[in-house]
Amino acid sequence: MTQGNQQIVLAEIPQGKLSPEHFRAVEADRPVPQDGEVLVRILYVSLDAANRAWMQGATYRSALKAGDVMAGGALAEVVESRSPAFMAGDLVFADTGWQTYATLPARRLARLPRLDPLTHLLSVYGVAGLTAYFGLLECGRPKPGETVVVSAAAGSVGSIVGQIARLKGCRVVGIAGGAGKADLLTSELGFDAAVDYKVGDTRRALRAACPDGIDVYFDNVGGEIFEACLFNMANHGRIACCGAVSQYDGVAPKAGPRGVPGLIVTKRLRLRGFIVSDFDDQRAAALEQLTSWVESGQLKVREDVIDGLENLPAALVGLLAGENIGKRMVKVG
Amino acid sequence: MTQGNQQIVLAEIPQGKLSPEHFRAVEADRPVPQDGEVLVRILYVSLDAANRAWMQGATYRSALKAGDVMAGGALAEVVESRSPAFMAGDLVFADTGWQTYATLPARRLARLPRLDPLTHLLSVYGVAGLTAYFGLLECGRPKPGETVVVSAAAGSVGSIVGQIARLKGCRVVGIAGGAGKADLLTSELGFDAAVDYKVGDTRRALRAACPDGIDVYFDNVGGEIFEACLFNMANHGRIACCGAVSQYDGVAPKAGPRGVPGLIVTKRLRLRGFIVSDFDDQRAAALEQLTSWVESGQLKVREDVIDGLENLPAALVGLLAGENIGKRMVKVG
Repeated sequence: MTQGNQQIVLAEIPQGKLSPEHFRAVEADRPVPQDGEVLVRILYVSLDAANRAWMQGATYRSALKAGDVMAGGALAEVVESRSPAFMAGDLVFADTGWQTYATLPARRLARLPRLDPLTHLLSVYGVAGLTAYFGLLECGRPKPGETVVVSAAAGSVGSIVGQIARLKGCRVVGIAGGAGKADLLTSELGFDAAVDYKVGDTRRALRAACPDGIDVYFDNVGGEIFEACLFNMANHGRIACCGAVSQYDGVAPKAGPRGVPGLIVTKRLRLRGFIVSDFDDQRAAALEQLTSWVESGQLKVREDVIDGLENLPAALVGLLAGENIGKRMVKVG
Repeated sequence: MTQGNQQIVLAEIPQGKLSPEHFRAVEADRPVPQDGEVLVRILYVSLDAANRAWMQGATYRSALKAGDVMAGGALAEVVESRSPAFMAGDLVFADTGWQTYATLPARRLARLPRLDPLTHLLSVYGVAGLTAYFGLLECGRPKPGETVVVSAAAGSVGSIVGQIARLKGCRVVGIAGGAGKADLLTSELGFDAAVDYKVGDTRRALRAACPDGIDVYFDNVGGEIFEACLFNMANHGRIACCGAVSQYDGVAPKAGPRGVPGLIVTKRLRLRGFIVSDFDDQRAAALEQLTSWVESGQLKVREDVIDGLENLPAALVGLLAGENIGKRMVKVG
């Protein structure tokens, strides 16, 4: 085994669309853990639209800078521990960045159980699954019989949101790009209807698909699709604001959707932004429920696993272009 | 007493800014109540920014059409009742429109107590006071020590919102147009600070006035001021969406504020739109609390009473331009 550490560095902050040229592969020495630190070997790196938002400025974390090892959450295995909290062989989740090895203070690691397949720890039992679960149930608060719409519906979060909404007795409409994804939603994932936003006039298509209006909209994308949903909301509807991927891959944020805040008033809507860690205190119960749905076959998990650290830049660019179905991750070690 | 009925008709739907030329005074016969109806004489007509929004399209009521008697809520006295629910001399609130007499089905009238001054029934004990009360306390949910910001702060609703927030132990910053209004907020109404948006760079002025961010923003205006507040919200802040007067007096609604929904996500904000009737079940308790604050001198009521039905068009145009302080109404009879 080499003593080196393969890394992908964010060489330059993109001013427009992100491309693989903004990254650079480098080799560093394998890091040595100090007192209280843990050395981990990265197994799978999670790819998330938020990775791009971190390049735009401070969000719920500080902004990325040119020259940083690219940040990213990963499933990793402890190689050497200088903390009593972990031992070699432990499986953990952490923001390790895009590299083969990392040292981190023990408090930055979350221990994970070994289960089969391991990849579920980054999809349904990871940030994606918990984001879907808490965003829909805590922020959306759907009632049986209500109409739930989710955007980026074939993605890691959206595909789970729609299935949970069905399990809760709702009518579910997914918005996705392309006929293939739209078909997948209704034929394999049990959605009641799908809207292909690439066809155009999403607002009218939603009106047809949701004749009584939208009671809960789970927003992953912002922008024009947010606006199309806003105009189709039913009175007293709720919007779970999870992300705004349509706004991440460019320069300055554009003007917001028309109808804000006017339609929020007249339709008496509730919007709530969240990130998954807001619900850490309910995490154990959520994982128990998700496990039961997956094991009984009621919740289908779609994953999109790409091999090789060197493919991370292209995999992220592709995710921002919507080429994945389900949870995208890269197998590193 | 004449048997005529003086009316102000909306002669034309404005395509841009509203002006008195869009209205026309006419004289009709005094209407005769049918079975189940009540004839009322209008005493005071309430002027509200929403009057202009009703000309733009359907809101929580159907849109106004050219040729309609202009709609508007009013304090009125029953002249003749053909319903067992009311008798001559009763005081009521109803959407009578801009005229000296009106007949309405009994179910469209709300009985009011006689109190002194009667005008308080349209200000602090009317839609304005209840809107402030419910919007702040139910949608904003301020906690003692938090920073509350309200726009249109010298207006009928804003002036009450700020005072209630003070009574609840909050630090209160009002946004208003002009040095005179800003002074009034701090010198007479007990606000901790005021921002004059006519000076420019409201976003920076708010940052200085709210160094720890805004916990609750009570939005009466939408548009650029909404955006300036959005960028200054504290994490987990709440926005009570009450109205969007900056968007009413023109043609199509413009693009929304930047930062929607991106900042809603990263700051984990909650936005809630409401109209006062959503809280009808809590109305009695709210009126009791408001009465106690007014009678003890803790809540100051500002009113702006103009005389004469014929002055209604100019009074509404002036209200949209922000010329009033406190609740504007027109004494008709």
